Amino acid sequence: MSDAPIELPKPSKAALLEARSLQRRKVREELGKFLVEGRKAVGEALKLRGAVEAVYVRWDAAIPNQDLLEAAAASKVPVFAVSEQNLATLTDTVTPQGVVAVARTLSVSLDSVLSESDVSLVVICAQVRDPGNAGTVIRCADAFGADAVILSSDSVEVYNPKVVRSSVGSIFHLPIVTGVSLAQAIDACRAAGLQIFATDGEAGTDLTDLDGALAKPTAWVMGNESWGLPLEHLQLADQTVAVPIYGHAESLNLATAAAVCLYASASAQREALG
Amino acid sequence: MSDAPIELPKPSKAALLEARSLQRRKVREELGKFLVEGRKAVGEALKLRGAVEAVYVRWDAAIPNQDLLEAAAASKVPVFAVSEQNLATLTDTVTPQGVVAVARTLSVSLDSVLSESDVSLVVICAQVRDPGNAGTVIRCADAFGADAVILSSDSVEVYNPKVVRSSVGSIFHLPIVTGVSLAQAIDACRAAGLQIFATDGEAGTDLTDLDGALAKPTAWVMGNESWGLPLEHLQLADQTVAVPIYGHAESLNLATAAAVCLYASASAQREALG
Repeated sequence: MSDAPIELPKPSKAALLEARSLQRRKVREELGKFLVEGRKAVGEALKLRGAVEAVYVRWDAAIPNQDLLEAAAASKVPVFAVSEQNLATLTDTVTPQGVVAVARTLSVSLDSVLSESDVSLVVICAQVRDPGNAGTVIRCADAFGADAVILSSDSVEVYNPKVVRSSVGSIFHLPIVTGVSLAQAIDACRAAGLQIFATDGEAGTDLTDLDGALAKPTAWVMGNESWGLPLEHLQLADQTVAVPIYGHAESLNLATAAAVCLYASASAQREALG
Repeated sequence: MSDAPIELPKPSKAALLEARSLQRRKVREELGKFLVEGRKAVGEALKLRGAVEAVYVRWDAAIPNQDLLEAAAASKVPVFAVSEQNLATLTDTVTPQGVVAVARTLSVSLDSVLSESDVSLVVICAQVRDPGNAGTVIRCADAFGADAVILSSDSVEVYNPKVVRSSVGSIFHLPIVTGVSLAQAIDACRAAGLQIFATDGEAGTDLTDLDGALAKPTAWVMGNESWGLPLEHLQLADQTVAVPIYGHAESLNLATAAAVCLYASASAQREALG
């Protein structure tokens, strides 16, 4: 195998400037595009037809990213070589893997997601503001086979680079609904036959008390990382549920609490199916 | 209640310089001290007798931190007022809560921890390098009532400010053993009557297959966030266990996987006790 650099075209100055501008939310919303960093996430994006507009590879990173280049070629997605300095302007982190993609935002409506016939597990994030938490919740939802994640309109933007990064490609694996209120999300889930469980450290019922109810189709409502779910949001649920705390920690962080609830639901649902 | 600032002494220049130098690992190890940031963590540290050497409060933050000041006074821990600029030199983050403490490192030996008569749940972190992950695993271990966390000697330093911060006070709630090899940790846990489960995404047995075994005294071995546990480490365990992945994510992140495993063990142990 040759170590010679693979010959790739350079991007136009206009394309590079546009890609760079996608670090700003306003531009992402105007153009309907966002940035995806890293081998794993770019690889997952390329598997989703039509999701990727272009791939930018650091000029000396083409060979280690050969598999991505082949996937891009197979999907007729253009790949451009850029300098380390130019690649750095596309991200707010170091990019040791040398690859960033421009993807198209993935718009899905609440109705289209919930009209599927076998929706059994949905995660609703209400006022989740930390991008790392939101991305990790999306990754957990994907891991435990959830049918969708709904981010209420007062949550962090799903195309924030830190959300995309911490989801490790999972935002390309399951529908993410945005721009709806918590009440709309809950109403639609209930209408689709899901019971509504809201997590609350103070709840009188804990996850281990739920028994058979855990196996039923469920939407889990997860609140803000600092203040949880306020009373008026808890009241929208059918049941408030605590993850049991057996030790001295006051609480779990949002993503770990979500992981435990989704594992418990998904496992109970699969066990009930035999 | 008066809004007038509470009168607090200023620290000596030497004390402030020493506190500032604790941002460096080498100094932490030499002096056996470390920094603790934020209301919650400082409050938990103050509950542990002898843990805190001094508290630094931003001059205008004494009133919102009144409860901490009272806890410090009750424990005869000195509290000093510092400027916003000086407080900023004690941390690598913004400190909106205006409070940082200097704490003494908490040395515990493997033997002393495992010689307790009712040790039933231990977490062993092997080559865990990301401080946020390590801190979150410690917080989860605390939440699910683990008896101890062991960080193998090739893991991140437990007094790294990011580990301390992400543990949200949990490092003051349960013994954290450091400076032992993974093999030593496993041998000691096994000698103490614990079964050794190692997490591995490729394992043939998943968490939902373990049934009764989950309720037995267990040490969970968690591997590195990127490469997991290498074969020679997996072979040290009695059983390798996968957290089930029902969807398309390739894996969970370390802290969420730990949360699920610890929840499953702790809940099964409690259920078996009736």
